[in-house]
Amino acid sequence: MNVILIDAGELDDLGRASIDGGRAAHIVSVLKAAAGDTIRIGLVDGPFGLGTIVAVENHAVRLHCTFESAVPPRPAVDLLLALPRPKVLRRLWAQLAALGVGRIMLTNAERVERNYFDTHVVTAECYRPLLIEGLQQARDTRLPLVSVHRQFRVLVEDHVAELSDASVHLVADPRASASIAAVLRQQAATRVLLAIGPEGGWNAFELSLLETHGFRSITMGSRTLRSDTACIALLSLVHSAMNSQGPPRNSQGPPRKSQGPPPKSERPPN
Amino acid sequence: MNVILIDAGELDDLGRASIDGGRAAHIVSVLKAAAGDTIRIGLVDGPFGLGTIVAVENHAVRLHCTFESAVPPRPAVDLLLALPRPKVLRRLWAQLAALGVGRIMLTNAERVERNYFDTHVVTAECYRPLLIEGLQQARDTRLPLVSVHRQFRVLVEDHVAELSDASVHLVADPRASASIAAVLRQQAATRVLLAIGPEGGWNAFELSLLETHGFRSITMGSRTLRSDTACIALLSLVHSAMNSQGPPRNSQGPPRKSQGPPPKSERPPN
Repeated sequence: MNVILIDAGELDDLGRASIDGGRAAHIVSVLKAAAGDTIRIGLVDGPFGLGTIVAVENHAVRLHCTFESAVPPRPAVDLLLALPRPKVLRRLWAQLAALGVGRIMLTNAERVERNYFDTHVVTAECYRPLLIEGLQQARDTRLPLVSVHRQFRVLVEDHVAELSDASVHLVADPRASASIAAVLRQQAATRVLLAIGPEGGWNAFELSLLETHGFRSITMGSRTLRSDTACIALLSLVHSAMNSQGPPRNSQGPPRKSQGPPPKSERPPN
Repeated sequence: MNVILIDAGELDDLGRASIDGGRAAHIVSVLKAAAGDTIRIGLVDGPFGLGTIVAVENHAVRLHCTFESAVPPRPAVDLLLALPRPKVLRRLWAQLAALGVGRIMLTNAERVERNYFDTHVVTAECYRPLLIEGLQQARDTRLPLVSVHRQFRVLVEDHVAELSDASVHLVADPRASASIAAVLRQQAATRVLLAIGPEGGWNAFELSLLETHGFRSITMGSRTLRSDTACIALLSLVHSAMNSQGPPRNSQGPPRKSQGPPPKSERPPN
C-alpha cells in the first residue's frame, strides 16, 4: 500500500476514522507508525490528505484526517472489455485500477460465455475491495466506474457515447497495422476509450460495429496474448502514448501541503 | 494454444512424434482435428512447421512433422529481474514467454527474501512447462534462457556482459523522468536489457551499481505497480518502442510454405 484509502462512510463529522483489517495491519507492521505519527491517506474518489494517528488499539487504528481541497483527475483511459473468465477477471480488477482506468464497461460478445455474467466477480461486493487495493498500490483515489452490459450491440449503439466522453476510440485487432502511438500522434486525445475483445477475439460483426462507431483498429504486435496480459500491456501502451503527447500525466493532484513531519507511508519506489 | 510445440526428444528419426496431455486434448477438443488434418506446430527453440495427424488414439495424437529451415529469432529483450515472490513468479513465467524475452536473469537484491531461492518455482522442472505454455499462446518457439543469481553484485560486475549482448541497458526507476521511448529514440538498439527491481525497489547501492554499469534509468509514470504488473507493462513498452524504431518485429520467421489445406491451429485473433 502506497496510500491508505478511507471511505467517506468511515469518517465522522470531526474528520475522525477508525480503520481495521489490512490497512491497520499495514500501518502497524509495515509503516511501523504509532500514535502521533502522520501517514499519507486518501478519500475514496476524493482528495489526498494526511492522517494523524490518535491511537492504535487491538486490531484498529484511530486517525484524525485532514484532506486537500483538490480531487485528483480521473485516469484518462476508459476500457470496453469483453467479460473475461471469472478467474481472470478476479486477478485483473486490482491491476486495472493500479494501471489507471476511468471507467470499465464489461460487455458480452459472441465468444463470452453467458454464465460469466452470473458470477460473484461482477458484483460490486467482489470488485470494489479489489479496485481499492489497486488504487492503494498505485497511490490514486479515483475509483473506476464499472458497468456491466449483456447486450454488446445496445452498448455500442446507445450507451458508449453517454458513458465515455473519450475523443479517440481504439480497438485492439491483430490484423491492424497501426500502433497505438501512431494513432495518438495523429489524433491527440484528452481521453481514450480502449476496446479489448475476448479470448478468441471479437467476431466480424462485433469488429465491424465498433469500426462503424468510430473505433480505430490498432495492433500490439504479432504475438497473441492471453486476455489479462493483453489488458495490462494495452493499458500501459495507451497511457504511455498519451503521456508522450503532452505534459506528463499526474494522477496525484496538486503538490501536498507540508504539514508536520513527512508522512510515514512513503515507501521506496520500485 | 496458437501453435503446438514439440520437444526435439519427442521426435523419432523419421519426424514422427506422439504427444499427449494438454496438447493432445487441444488438438482433439479445440481444433477438432482428426487423422489426415494438418496443424501448425513448432519445435521448441527451433523452426515452425506442420504436423499431419496420423492417428488419434486414447489420449495421444500421433503426428508426422515437417519443419521449415529457418529458426525464428530470439525475442530482442532480455530481462534482469529481482526474484519475485514465488506465487507471483509462478504466474509470470507464461506471461513473460508470451510477451517475448530472450533471456531472464533472476537476481538477488536487498529487498528479495533469501528463501525465495529455495522454492520449486525457480527450478526448470517448474518453469519450463510454463514458459512453453506462454510460447504456445504467443505463437513463438524460442524458449527464454533462464539463469538464477544469488549475488547481485557479481552478476552485474562479472556476468551481465557475457549473458546478454544488449546494446542498451535500462533500469525502471520511478525517480527517473526519461521514458523508454525517449531513450530508445536517442539510442537505437537491436537488443535491450531491462532491469526490474523487487517490490519496494532497488536500494541505493544496487541502483548506483546498475548505473555505473551503463543502465539508464527510465520511468513508466507516476503510478507504483505491483512487480508482476510492472513486468508486463515494461516489457510491452520496450517491445513497442523497439518496433517503432525500425521495421516491425516478426517473431514468426519467414512465411510458411503452403502445404495442403490451411493448418487447423489458426485461431481467430483476439
